[in-house]
Amino acid sequence: MSLGFRPTLTLISTMTTFSLSYVPCFRTGSSSTDNGDPPSVWSFKIYSAFTSTKITRTTMYAALPLAGVNGTTLVERTMIPTQKQFVDPFRQGLIIMDGVGYRQTVVVRSYEVGTDKTATLISIMNLLQETALNHVWMSGLLGDGFGATRGMTRNNLIWVVTRMQVEVDQYPIWGEILEIDTWVSASGKNGMRRDWEIRSHDTGIVFARATSTWVMMNEKTRRLSKIPDEVREEISPWFIHNQTIKEESPEKINKLDDNAKYINSGLQPKRSDLDMNHHVNNVKYVGWMLEAVPDECLENYQLSNIVLEYRKECGSSDVVQSLCEPEELGIIQDGVQGGTDVNYINGCSIGIGGGGLLNCLMNEGTIRFTHGLQVKEGSKCQEIVRGKTTWKKRNNRYTFCG
Amino acid sequence: MSLGFRPTLTLISTMTTFSLSYVPCFRTGSSSTDNGDPPSVWSFKIYSAFTSTKITRTTMYAALPLAGVNGTTLVERTMIPTQKQFVDPFRQGLIIMDGVGYRQTVVVRSYEVGTDKTATLISIMNLLQETALNHVWMSGLLGDGFGATRGMTRNNLIWVVTRMQVEVDQYPIWGEILEIDTWVSASGKNGMRRDWEIRSHDTGIVFARATSTWVMMNEKTRRLSKIPDEVREEISPWFIHNQTIKEESPEKINKLDDNAKYINSGLQPKRSDLDMNHHVNNVKYVGWMLEAVPDECLENYQLSNIVLEYRKECGSSDVVQSLCEPEELGIIQDGVQGGTDVNYINGCSIGIGGGGLLNCLMNEGTIRFTHGLQVKEGSKCQEIVRGKTTWKKRNNRYTFCG
Repeated sequence: MSLGFRPTLTLISTMTTFSLSYVPCFRTGSSSTDNGDPPSVWSFKIYSAFTSTKITRTTMYAALPLAGVNGTTLVERTMIPTQKQFVDPFRQGLIIMDGVGYRQTVVVRSYEVGTDKTATLISIMNLLQETALNHVWMSGLLGDGFGATRGMTRNNLIWVVTRMQVEVDQYPIWGEILEIDTWVSASGKNGMRRDWEIRSHDTGIVFARATSTWVMMNEKTRRLSKIPDEVREEISPWFIHNQTIKEESPEKINKLDDNAKYINSGLQPKRSDLDMNHHVNNVKYVGWMLEAVPDECLENYQLSNIVLEYRKECGSSDVVQSLCEPEELGIIQDGVQGGTDVNYINGCSIGIGGGGLLNCLMNEGTIRFTHGLQVKEGSKCQEIVRGKTTWKKRNNRYTFCG
Repeated sequence: MSLGFRPTLTLISTMTTFSLSYVPCFRTGSSSTDNGDPPSVWSFKIYSAFTSTKITRTTMYAALPLAGVNGTTLVERTMIPTQKQFVDPFRQGLIIMDGVGYRQTVVVRSYEVGTDKTATLISIMNLLQETALNHVWMSGLLGDGFGATRGMTRNNLIWVVTRMQVEVDQYPIWGEILEIDTWVSASGKNGMRRDWEIRSHDTGIVFARATSTWVMMNEKTRRLSKIPDEVREEISPWFIHNQTIKEESPEKINKLDDNAKYINSGLQPKRSDLDMNHHVNNVKYVGWMLEAVPDECLENYQLSNIVLEYRKECGSSDVVQSLCEPEELGIIQDGVQGGTDVNYINGCSIGIGGGGLLNCLMNEGTIRFTHGLQVKEGSKCQEIVRGKTTWKKRNNRYTFCG
């Protein structure tokens, strides 16, 4: 495993600041709230350490091009590194795996958890996005926008996600300290695969694994693109073969239509759903998908696996329908009941009305749904995403499948 | 300024781990992604430092009581401190202001910014909540739930926010490093005031200030409560008189009704809007309020001030209406135009239809709205929140007030 970027002079200079840079973030400047802190006994050491950190940062970073913000102060504000960084004390990130992977430590925040005090899937997916971007940030390759390298920016290319899978064994809880590792590998000839592993910092237990596939799109023509040579030269030294979720031939996800059992209509992107790229962020799609899942499932079951196939961008004025269908694990025609033929799925009658089928399937301990998001364009429906979710019974919970 | 908790033995023991604990979060345990990292040249130092940190943490923390999560591993998972902590390397927080205030360093994340790459107001308010909770976390007083002390938990008391004001001078941008300070003071006889200041870590420039007022409510009777003596003893040593936004007699916020110019109906809490207390989180209310603000304002103006008066909890099945009215700064009857009397507000004709009045007011550089959230209960309306927002023209933007 010797993919370039071996610890050399750069690392040594990073090391110098490394032991110094992990200090709490004091400033020497005055502030209305600096009331004689920090306690004077350790102030000298901290301030001098901070100064070293600052020098390293300002010499290594370049201005972030941003529209819509007062330009005069930008150079002094956020800086994107133009050289590879090995440690970032503020992001609590560091380069691992012989120089090609990225690890970030995060604490689960109060607003990232749901009523049961465990992190929501949306929060987890946001952290996946965040660590992926910080990986590119640390690489020194980041151009502008959402993880595009400078070579991509020169070629008007952006990343587009085509597939995403998240497996959650255990949901992290409020205040828990996590380690998130992420790394990339080749996917076919013109794609990139990005994997993640989320662990408990204290025990090392793996909470979740995720994998995703990305291709390049020309931002202007909106057509998919091959990876240009200059971009391949940028990213290929970072590739590592290490799959957190083994690649099998992916299961086909059926297309749903208006006959789906659960439909949630009239979903429309809000201004706050648009990301830096002015697109509906792909994490938003997951929120819409989950809105169609019946309440009794959300109450008593926890999502353990989700697969998403992204098919089309959602425009900011589109009105989206979220479709959801419980998976039929195999229909067995099972005889006659009261003079009528009754179909059974896994031993559950589907002849009964209301939520009967779902209730019965839920009692089996695991339930699966097929999902679809679609946009109506006149009489035609355009698919945005197909998805599949698996749900497991919650622990220590009163399970009412009503 | 000498309000207890002076650096003593506790601090010294924290100091011992302090210089050691600011290490990136390696574990010694094996993992499928540990490919020979970190580079061996610094591994010994880091691992031994990590061990020290761990010992300190486990001896000082107690189990977090949580429902709905596998109980057997909880003691080994998130721990709420039972003693005052001075530094938390994972939250990047530390106690300041002679031992009573809290400072946390955060990096603006990719999913916390909007299309213009600046942090959204919602993200800022989430960070205010997070730092407030971490302040209580560090104090060693945290019982369970949303910032309640152990004394409060014994008395079935929870915090309820009654007023909140946020002033934003400049929105932080993606990747920017922030310092957020927060502290508390008495507010009248039975209230608590909490203030915040958000600064650029690099320049010390103040980006935003916020203040809030809190009272205690009995969780069972839902009635407001005096502060019991045992709770006063817990929290009053933390009070400090230091107002980031000066307390003036707060401006009255008018009640709006169905005649408001902009109305957004049918807003309903989603499961994901409920917080650890099973309530619609008060930050959500701000999102609803902003949804009624016309697009042309959001495009060209940036919110610079928001005041919220919380009046009633929103139930999870309530359907909310968001009302919004541009503020009339003073009507001047100003003569005759084309044979008809025309009223003018600050020189703007209000005789013209459509968005004419708003457009004209917007061109003045600042615009203000009064807001209201209400729930219909039969023919009666119950007010949830009243609010007021001030908006300033964005810099370097083409301002079209269409």
